[in-house]
Amino acid sequence: MLSNFKIPEKSDSKEAAKEIKVLQKKLAVLQQKVKDLNIPVIIIVDGWSASGKGRAISSITSQMEPRSYKVFATKLPEGDDARKPWLSRFWRDTPARGSVAIYDRGWYLDALSYVVDDDINNSFTDSICRFERQLADDGYIICKFFLHIGQEEQFKRMDELEKSSATSWRVNDRDWEQNRRYSTWFNAKNELLNLTSNDYAPWDIIWNEEKNCGILKMLKLLCKKLQKAVDGEKPDTYLMRFPPDVNLLKMPKLSEVDLEHAVKNEEYDERLKSEKKKLQELHSLLYREKLPIVAAFEGWDASGKGGAIRRLSWSLDPRGFAVSSIAGPTADELAHHYLWRFWNKLPKNGHISVFDRSWYGRVMVERIEGYTPEERWSQAFDEINEFEKELTDWGAIVLKFWIQVDKQTQLDRFMARQEDPEKRYKITDEDWRNRAKWELYEEAVDEMIAKTSTELAPWIIVEGNDKKFARLRVIKEFRKAIEKRLGIR
Amino acid sequence: MLSNFKIPEKSDSKEAAKEIKVLQKKLAVLQQKVKDLNIPVIIIVDGWSASGKGRAISSITSQMEPRSYKVFATKLPEGDDARKPWLSRFWRDTPARGSVAIYDRGWYLDALSYVVDDDINNSFTDSICRFERQLADDGYIICKFFLHIGQEEQFKRMDELEKSSATSWRVNDRDWEQNRRYSTWFNAKNELLNLTSNDYAPWDIIWNEEKNCGILKMLKLLCKKLQKAVDGEKPDTYLMRFPPDVNLLKMPKLSEVDLEHAVKNEEYDERLKSEKKKLQELHSLLYREKLPIVAAFEGWDASGKGGAIRRLSWSLDPRGFAVSSIAGPTADELAHHYLWRFWNKLPKNGHISVFDRSWYGRVMVERIEGYTPEERWSQAFDEINEFEKELTDWGAIVLKFWIQVDKQTQLDRFMARQEDPEKRYKITDEDWRNRAKWELYEEAVDEMIAKTSTELAPWIIVEGNDKKFARLRVIKEFRKAIEKRLGIR
Repeated sequence: MLSNFKIPEKSDSKEAAKEIKVLQKKLAVLQQKVKDLNIPVIIIVDGWSASGKGRAISSITSQMEPRSYKVFATKLPEGDDARKPWLSRFWRDTPARGSVAIYDRGWYLDALSYVVDDDINNSFTDSICRFERQLADDGYIICKFFLHIGQEEQFKRMDELEKSSATSWRVNDRDWEQNRRYSTWFNAKNELLNLTSNDYAPWDIIWNEEKNCGILKMLKLLCKKLQKAVDGEKPDTYLMRFPPDVNLLKMPKLSEVDLEHAVKNEEYDERLKSEKKKLQELHSLLYREKLPIVAAFEGWDASGKGGAIRRLSWSLDPRGFAVSSIAGPTADELAHHYLWRFWNKLPKNGHISVFDRSWYGRVMVERIEGYTPEERWSQAFDEINEFEKELTDWGAIVLKFWIQVDKQTQLDRFMARQEDPEKRYKITDEDWRNRAKWELYEEAVDEMIAKTSTELAPWIIVEGNDKKFARLRVIKEFRKAIEKRLGIR
Repeated sequence: MLSNFKIPEKSDSKEAAKEIKVLQKKLAVLQQKVKDLNIPVIIIVDGWSASGKGRAISSITSQMEPRSYKVFATKLPEGDDARKPWLSRFWRDTPARGSVAIYDRGWYLDALSYVVDDDINNSFTDSICRFERQLADDGYIICKFFLHIGQEEQFKRMDELEKSSATSWRVNDRDWEQNRRYSTWFNAKNELLNLTSNDYAPWDIIWNEEKNCGILKMLKLLCKKLQKAVDGEKPDTYLMRFPPDVNLLKMPKLSEVDLEHAVKNEEYDERLKSEKKKLQELHSLLYREKLPIVAAFEGWDASGKGGAIRRLSWSLDPRGFAVSSIAGPTADELAHHYLWRFWNKLPKNGHISVFDRSWYGRVMVERIEGYTPEERWSQAFDEINEFEKELTDWGAIVLKFWIQVDKQTQLDRFMARQEDPEKRYKITDEDWRNRAKWELYEEAVDEMIAKTSTELAPWIIVEGNDKKFARLRVIKEFRKAIEKRLGIR
C-alpha cells in the first residue's frame, strides 16, 4: 500500500479549511443517523510518529455529540491486560451498536511492535483480519486511516516539537529511532497494511504533509463511508474470510454414545479423593507456569452440569478460578458482538475460567428459538473455531464438555426434582418446553460437535446417565489435560 | 486487638476436623439462603505471611456453590488501576446482591503497605471505614478474619516452605523481612486492626497455629454471622459513621439566582474562541501533570446541559476525556451500591470524565419518584460528600454544575422543541411530568446544594436563561479551576 502510494499534488490549504468545517457538520449529522440506525462504527487512526494523529482525531470529533463516541489512546498492555489474550482489551472496548469508537492506533500498535525487527508474524495479522471480519459480519463499519509523511518532514516536525519545552515530552527515543531507520519501518508498515487491508476493513493512506489537505481527504472518505452505511449499501457477504487452519476431529453422534458406564459408591469416594489430591497439586503448578484454562460446560437440562462443576471447584484453589453462569444476554450484551461477553470473562494466565453454558448457545438455543437469524448463527461455527484458536494460540488449554444423558434419564430427574420441595425451584416450564424440542436440539448438537471439535479444542462427550461417573470423568479430563500440557507422564 | 489477644487453649484437632465438615455443609445452605434473600456478603481473610490464608479460604468455599461466589487474590495496583483512586478497583469488585466475595487481604493489602515504616495514615483508615460503612448501610454483610501466628511458628513454616522446590516460590524477601521485624509489624497490624474494627465490620482474630482449630473457630463465627443476616438481625442504624471533615459553603437558593445575564453574539464568538484556545493548552498540561478532573452536570430538563457539554468537548483533546450519560440504572447496577456505577466510570489521572447527570440522581429523581426509601436517600448526602472527598484526596478537581433556568424559559424551550420536527424526539411525556413537580424538585435541589457544596467540591450554579452565557461560563470555570490548581495566574 505505501510502496505504490502516489503523493497527491499540492492544493489550496485555505480552501480546504473551509471545506473541513462543512464536512465536520455533516459528520455530526451522520453520527446522529448512525445512532438512530444502531450501527456501530470503528475508526482507526494510525500513521508515522508526528504525522498528526491527534489533530486528525480532534478534527473528526470536532462537531460530534460527545455522549455517543469514545476515543481510545492505545498503549502496550500492562497489569492484568498483559496476562490476557492480546486482543481481549480491544474486544472489551468495541463500541455498542449506535456508537462510535475512535482508536489512536488500536490493535495496530501491538501488531507493529512485533514486526519491525522481526519478520511479520502472520498469525498476528491473521488474528486482526479475523477480528475485524467478525465485527464486520456483525454489522460494524470499520474505517482505517494511515497518516503518511516522508522522512524529512518527520525529522522537521520532531525537531520542532523537541525545541519547545511545552511539546518536547511528545518525542521519545523510539520516535527518533523510527526516523533514523525510516526505510526499515516503511517496509514493515507497508507489509502490515498490505496484510490487513480487506474488503470489510480497507486501509486509506492519507498524505498528511500539507496543512488541512490530508484532514480534508480523510473527512471526505469518512463521510462517504458513513453515508454508505446509513444508506444500507453493504455487500451480502464479505469475500475475504481468513478461516483458521483447524483440524476437525471425527466425532460420534449423540445417539451413538454408550451411556451404560457407572461407578460404584465406594469406588467413587476413593477415586474422587485421589483425583482431587492430584488436581490440587496440578493447580498450583498451573499457577506457577502461568498456564490458563478455559472450560465450557454444555449438556441437556438436568444432565448434571452444576454438580460436576461443583465437584471440580472443590478440587481447586478458589483464588485461581471462577465460574461464569451464562443466561440470556443483557441489553448491553445484545448491543455488542455475541462473543463480547465471553471475551470479557476470560481468565488471567495461571487461572481457570469455567463457563456454565457458553458461547455455544449461539448454535443451540439462539438457533432453535430463532433469536438469531440463520445467516448469523451459521457463521458462528467459524467464529467459534476462530475464538478458540485465539485462546490456544495464547497458550490456553481449552476444554469443552458435553454431558450426555438419554431422554428417559432426563424425565426421571425432572420428576424427582418436582417431587422434592427443596429442588422444585430448579425445574421450570422452560425445561419442559426444551424437552419437547429434544430432536431439534439433538440435531443441532450433532452439527455443533461435528463442526467445532478441533484438534486443539476437542469436545469431550461425558456419559452422564450415572452422575458419579460423569463427575469423576470431568475431573479426570482436567487432570489429564494439564498433565499432557506440562509433560507429566 | 492483637495486643490484648489471649491465645486460646489447645483443643482436639481430630474432633475439630469432624466439626469443620458439618460447618462447611451448613455454610453451603446459608449461601443458598443469602442468595434467595439477595444479601451481598463480603469476607476478608487477612493475616501474617504463612498464616494459612489460602487454606482458610479453601475451607470456606469447600462446599459452596461456585456460581455465586468469587475469590479475589489481591495484588498491589498495576496499569490503569494504579492511575485511579486506590479504592476504585475494590469498588469494582464488590459483589452483587445475593453473592459472596472473598478477598485474600483485599483493601488491607494496600493499607498495610503504607503503615509499616511510616506511621499509620489516618486518611487511609478513614477511607476504609467509610467504604465499609457505605456498603453496610446498603445491606452488605462484612466479615473480617485476621489469622494470627507467633514469630517462631512463622519462621518454622516459612523455613519448611522454602525447603521444598514445589513451595519455595511462595516465600519472598518481604515475608522474611516481616519475620525478622515481627514486633514492628505486630504494632503496625495491631494499630490497623484497631482503627478499622467497627460495629458494622468488626475484626475477628483467629489463632491459627494449631491444625484445624483456627479454621473451626473461623467457620463457626462465619456461620453465626450469616445466620444472623438470614434471620434479619441487624441494627436499625450503625453507630460508627466517620463523617469526613468537610466545610460546607453558604449557597444561595435557586430562587435567589439572578438569571438576567446574557452575552451578545459577536462577543460570544470571540470569547468562545479565546477560551477554547486556552483550555486546549491547559488540557495538555493537565495530561502531563497527571491531574484528573471529574465533572458532573445537573440542571432542569432543557436547561442546556447537552449543549454546554458539547461546546466543552469541542475545546478538549478527545483522547483525554469521556462523557458518561447517566440514565436509569440497569439490573446489574441495581444489584450493587448506587455509587458503584460512578466509581466504575472514573477517569485515569491526566484524564477528564464528564457526567451528564450524575450520582446526584439519588437525592433528586430517586427521592421524588420514591425509587429509594427516605432512610437511604437521606444518607446519600454524607455518602456523596465522602465519595467526592475520596476524589479530591486522590488529587482530582471535582466540578459540579447546576444549570439554572426559570420556569418560563423551560416552557419556551419545550414549546420550541415540540414545534421543530428535528427536535421533537427530545421532548417526552416524562419531561412534562417532571415539570409538573417543579416545586418539589426545587426544594430537593436547594437541600442538595446546601448539603453537598463543600470547599473542595463546590457547586457552581450557572445562569442558564441565556444559552450562550451558560456555555461560556462552563468553559471558563473549567479553565479557572485548572489554572488555580496548577498555580497559573
